[in-house]
Amino acid sequence: MAVYTHLGAEDLAQLIAHYDVGRLLSFKGIAEGVSNSNWLLETTQGRFILTMYERRIETDDLPFFLGLLDHLSAANCPVPRTIHDCDGAAYRMVDGKAVALIEFLPGLSPSTPTEAQARSVGAALGQMHRAAQDYPNTRNSTLEPQDTLEILDQCGTDALAGIDPALPDILPIGARIVADWPEHLPGSIIHSDLFPDNVLMLGDEVTGMIDFYFAATGAMAYDLAVTHAAWCFDDTGEACDPALGAALIAGYESLRPLSDEERAALPLLAQGACLRFIASRAQDWLETPEDALVRRKDPMDFLRRLEFYRANGQSAFA
Amino acid sequence: MAVYTHLGAEDLAQLIAHYDVGRLLSFKGIAEGVSNSNWLLETTQGRFILTMYERRIETDDLPFFLGLLDHLSAANCPVPRTIHDCDGAAYRMVDGKAVALIEFLPGLSPSTPTEAQARSVGAALGQMHRAAQDYPNTRNSTLEPQDTLEILDQCGTDALAGIDPALPDILPIGARIVADWPEHLPGSIIHSDLFPDNVLMLGDEVTGMIDFYFAATGAMAYDLAVTHAAWCFDDTGEACDPALGAALIAGYESLRPLSDEERAALPLLAQGACLRFIASRAQDWLETPEDALVRRKDPMDFLRRLEFYRANGQSAFA
Repeated sequence: MAVYTHLGAEDLAQLIAHYDVGRLLSFKGIAEGVSNSNWLLETTQGRFILTMYERRIETDDLPFFLGLLDHLSAANCPVPRTIHDCDGAAYRMVDGKAVALIEFLPGLSPSTPTEAQARSVGAALGQMHRAAQDYPNTRNSTLEPQDTLEILDQCGTDALAGIDPALPDILPIGARIVADWPEHLPGSIIHSDLFPDNVLMLGDEVTGMIDFYFAATGAMAYDLAVTHAAWCFDDTGEACDPALGAALIAGYESLRPLSDEERAALPLLAQGACLRFIASRAQDWLETPEDALVRRKDPMDFLRRLEFYRANGQSAFA
Repeated sequence: MAVYTHLGAEDLAQLIAHYDVGRLLSFKGIAEGVSNSNWLLETTQGRFILTMYERRIETDDLPFFLGLLDHLSAANCPVPRTIHDCDGAAYRMVDGKAVALIEFLPGLSPSTPTEAQARSVGAALGQMHRAAQDYPNTRNSTLEPQDTLEILDQCGTDALAGIDPALPDILPIGARIVADWPEHLPGSIIHSDLFPDNVLMLGDEVTGMIDFYFAATGAMAYDLAVTHAAWCFDDTGEACDPALGAALIAGYESLRPLSDEERAALPLLAQGACLRFIASRAQDWLETPEDALVRRKDPMDFLRRLEFYRANGQSAFA
């Protein structure tokens, strides 16, 4: 979480002149985003988030991500609109890096969500899945269970055991998840990363779903399972709050009822979600020096969740 | 520049409840401050900066700093007010760390200031010096030339030469600055660090002077000399823009004319200012690993400024 690039007031004023957003009054670099830099801007016409994409590879996907925000926003989903420049472009290049201007939305990310909040988040996710079904663009996920299992295989048993002696257990478990993975569940564009950090709320109302940079074509029930794993446990994954999970699913079904097949698949989908976060955390752990300023997130937090889903099956979602 | 501490929405809402500022609508960690964490908050009553002081030592000085903001703000200087809690306290403790709530001010820090902007900054500094003269508290500076020369002595000739072969020249130059340092110039509370980063402007108007954490009792003309060294050169210190300097001093004198003695002292005071930034940058350079993510600032940028002031004497300020 950092601002990787220095943008001066004059650089920014020059950039903003390409948009019909009024005159710049304030800008602050904000500590959000892992692979991009973000600033909160205020102009005479409102507030905006300016994002600079620091990794070259993301630029190719920007039309998909930024167009999705416009599509969902037009369908009244609580997501920020993309502000297009005076030529209609969704992003511009500054010093070889893509930048996009996005609507600022108020709200706070809950760290200890209530049932009412979980219900609202479920409903917002269901609304988003429905609205995204007629989004004309597609994007392949690179986070299917097979992909994430490969990441863990590349880490290797010894390195995984170095993080925690129990962590290599994930390799055979992951192989079973991949083998049993359901195909042909109803699809849409899915958020894929709807952690509380990526949801803004005022009271019980969702005012914003943000950070769609993992969005891809995928199974809607998988997105719900990701959200369940992200919202319904304490940080360490030791305690699941079933009431939160029930509220999340009830909220979701108020907008989009699950089919029997989707409901039956939830335990495995949730295990697949955990597999993915175990893989990304293990990879980050091994790539981050022990003495780095960044706090490494423990992959075991999601191995505990995975074990919960394996042990409880369908009753985890009752 | 970072946010060192995680504050959740619930933690923050709990903290804000101790202040009469309304209900929280948004908060973002902002990438400002070196030894503290900062958040931009929006409530139903306005916007505020929340600062958490990460270093224990600063807490003892907080009443001085926060009271100064109130004093200057009451005198219509463009500085943010301290927001006191419902018990009247200027700061509170959270998890053993002091936090303070400060008024948010609009404006942008110019990276290539104009003459009109330099004039306004000079006037704002003069206004501040006058307003601070009846501030009842004092604080000893730890950044007198003698102190900063000691820092360079502790670095040692070899280490300084490792940064740049010409850098050890600063030791005998610094000794002469210390020997000739003028005493008994008219004093007040001085900002001591009024770089463009610490000034917010809208057009040619100063909307905010911020970051008073080096403020101390000191010679007003020294503060003007610091500001001259900070505003009137390009980044590397190779080119001085005399018109910017003239505008800065004219603006200052429009509020507070310099005495003959102060004017005569400016060349040496400016060299003392450069000595200080050479010392702090050399120390940071030697303490920051070469491969750190933080960009190290080159002490030579201020050795070049110092040479300019030595070579040009009084004409640097004409």
